Amino acid sequence: MNGAPPSITLSQAQSPCFVGLDVGGTNIKLGLVDNLGRTIARQTIATQQQDGPQAAVERMAAAVRQIVQQAGGSLDKIPGVGLATPGTMDIPAGKLLQPHNLPAWWGFPIREKLSAACGRPVVFANDANAAAFGESWVGSGQGFLSIVFLTLGTGVGGGIIIGDLSVDGQHSHGGECGHVILDYHDTARLCPCGQRGHLEAYASAQAVVQRTQEGLEAGRPSSLRHRLASGEGLTPLIVAEEAERNDELALEIVLETARYLGIGVVTLMHTVDPGAVILGGAMTFGGPSSPLGQRFLERVRQEVRRRAFPVLAERTSVVFAALGSDAGYIGAAGIARAAHHAAPGGSAA
Amino acid sequence: MNGAPPSITLSQAQSPCFVGLDVGGTNIKLGLVDNLGRTIARQTIATQQQDGPQAAVERMAAAVRQIVQQAGGSLDKIPGVGLATPGTMDIPAGKLLQPHNLPAWWGFPIREKLSAACGRPVVFANDANAAAFGESWVGSGQGFLSIVFLTLGTGVGGGIIIGDLSVDGQHSHGGECGHVILDYHDTARLCPCGQRGHLEAYASAQAVVQRTQEGLEAGRPSSLRHRLASGEGLTPLIVAEEAERNDELALEIVLETARYLGIGVVTLMHTVDPGAVILGGAMTFGGPSSPLGQRFLERVRQEVRRRAFPVLAERTSVVFAALGSDAGYIGAAGIARAAHHAAPGGSAA
Repeated sequence: MNGAPPSITLSQAQSPCFVGLDVGGTNIKLGLVDNLGRTIARQTIATQQQDGPQAAVERMAAAVRQIVQQAGGSLDKIPGVGLATPGTMDIPAGKLLQPHNLPAWWGFPIREKLSAACGRPVVFANDANAAAFGESWVGSGQGFLSIVFLTLGTGVGGGIIIGDLSVDGQHSHGGECGHVILDYHDTARLCPCGQRGHLEAYASAQAVVQRTQEGLEAGRPSSLRHRLASGEGLTPLIVAEEAERNDELALEIVLETARYLGIGVVTLMHTVDPGAVILGGAMTFGGPSSPLGQRFLERVRQEVRRRAFPVLAERTSVVFAALGSDAGYIGAAGIARAAHHAAPGGSAA
Repeated sequence: MNGAPPSITLSQAQSPCFVGLDVGGTNIKLGLVDNLGRTIARQTIATQQQDGPQAAVERMAAAVRQIVQQAGGSLDKIPGVGLATPGTMDIPAGKLLQPHNLPAWWGFPIREKLSAACGRPVVFANDANAAAFGESWVGSGQGFLSIVFLTLGTGVGGGIIIGDLSVDGQHSHGGECGHVILDYHDTARLCPCGQRGHLEAYASAQAVVQRTQEGLEAGRPSSLRHRLASGEGLTPLIVAEEAERNDELALEIVLETARYLGIGVVTLMHTVDPGAVILGGAMTFGGPSSPLGQRFLERVRQEVRRRAFPVLAERTSVVFAALGSDAGYIGAAGIARAAHHAAPGGSAA
C-alpha cells in the first residue's frame, strides 16, 4: 500500500533485485524491489526540474547507489534500472520529447545519461504505463492475463499491460486511455488536449470542477455554496466532502463521473478485453477505504454491466488500484526485470 | 492479393511450412503457407455447417492432408496447423461457444477434434484476429511494430496485433473494435449487439443501408430511387455505384461512413497507438483500385488528422488491407508459426 513501510529486508529478498524510478514534476520516487516485486527500500528526492536534466540525473544516480548500499547491497548485482517519466517521450530512443511538467528537460536523452551516471542498463517507460505494470505485477492486477489501468487526477492517464508487455505503442503513445472518445459531436466537452468528447474532458479532476461549477451557475442548490462563500476553492476534494454529507449536486457529480468512466471502460473492454480494469490516482473519491469511494466504484461497475458484452460485464473485474503512488517505481523495476529475463543472457524465471 | 494464384511452389518454399484454415458460415478457406508467409497452395471447401462440426472437422482434416500432398509435401513435416473461426469462442479451451453463423456447432471442442483428425498440433484463433495477423505478417502491416485491423462488412470486426501477439483478450473478446463507443447518449444509433452508439451501428453495411434509407425517407433527391423502383434491393453496392455517378445522397453516405470510421480509428490510436490502421473487408467501396474507395480512404484519413494527437495524426498509416479474403488462412498459419517458434522445441527464427 502507498505509504506502507518497505515489506522486506535484502536478506529476505529473492534475487535479482531491480531499482525503479518514477519521475514527476515535483518529486522523484525510487525503490529497490526484489524479483517478486517486494520493496526493500525506497526514497523520495526533489525533481528540481529547473536545474536541468543532467543535474537531476546525477542526483538520481546518487540516490540509486545510496538506496542499494543502505540496504546492504551492491549496485553491480542489480541487473537493471527502470526509469519512468511523464510523456511526451520517445521510448525506443530513450528520449524525453516535450513533457509539460518538465519544461527544462525537453529533448533530453535521459535513458543513456542515467545509464552512464549509474553504470547500469536502464529501461525507459512512460509513467502511467509503469504504474499499470506495477499494478499488473504485484497490485490489483495479479493473476490476470491482461489489465487496463486508469489513473484519475488532473487528467486521466492510462496503461495497458498484456502479460509482461507494456503497450507502449509505435509512437510511445500507447495507453492514452483518457483520450478515448465518448461523444463525437461538435457539442461534446472540450478536452485539455484541444479535442472534444474525450473521457478526460468528463472524468478528470478538472472536469469535475467544471461540471460542478456549471451546476452551481445553473442555480442548483448545494452546500458547496457555503464552502465557496467562506473562501475555499472548488476542488474535487470539497465536492467529495459535500457528497459524503449527501449534498445532492455534489453526489450527482461524483456518480456522473463514475458513469462517464464506465462508458470509457466499456470501449477499452471491447478493444483490449482485459481481465481487470484498475482505477487509481488521487481522484477516486476516497478509494477503497471510503463509503463514497465504494459508491463511486459501484457506479462505474453498474455502467459497465449496462453497456458491455454480457460475458465481459460478468467476468471483467473493475477494481481500485492497490499500490498507490508506489505503483510507478515498482512497475519501472518490473519493466527492468521483464527486459532482463527476456534478454538472451537473462534468467528464464 | 485475393484470388491471385499461389505465389510459389514447395521447392521454392522456406521451411517449415504451416497450414491455416479460415472457417466461415458458408466456406472454409485453407492454405499451405511457408515460413515467410507465401502461399504454396490453397483450397476452398463448403462448410456444410448443418451436418455438424465433427463431419466438418473430418473434411477439414482430409483437405489439409490433400493440400500438403498435392504440393508434394508430407503432413508430418508441418509443425502446426492454425484454425480460425468466428466467435464467440473460448480460445484457451479451444472451444466454440455460440458463433451465430455456425448454430449447429455451439460448444464444440474444435481445436482438439481437428488436432486428433489431422494428427498435428492445432492453434486456435478468432477469424478477424487471424486476418489481422495475416495483414501484419505479410500484408499492409509489414514493417510496423503493431497494427489495428478493421474488417468492414455486415458488421465491423477487428483485430489488434502487437509484434507476434494477437490481442485475444482475457475472455476471447480482444479486438472487437466495431464495438468502441462513438456516442454515449441514449439517442445514439442502435448496434446489432443491442447496445447504442458503437462504431458498428454507424459504419457497417447494415448501417449504410439504414442511413441511406433514412435519407430517402426524409425526401432527399437521389438516383437511388430509380434503382429501387426497378425492383433492386438497397445494398452498399448500389449506394457505391450511385456515389460513383456523383449522386449527392449516395456520396454523402459513403463519406459519412468514412468519417465515423475515422472517429473510431482515433479512439483505437489513442489506446493502442499502432503503426498502421488497416481497413479490409467487403465494404470498402471498391478499395484501393477504385476512385470512390480512394475518396473513402482519404476521408477516413482526414477525420484522423482532425482528431488524433498531432504526432499520431502525422505518423500513423491508415491504409487498405492487401490480402483480401486470403488474410484469414495466412494469418492462421502465421499464428501457428509464431506458436511453433516460441515453443521451447521450436526454431529461434
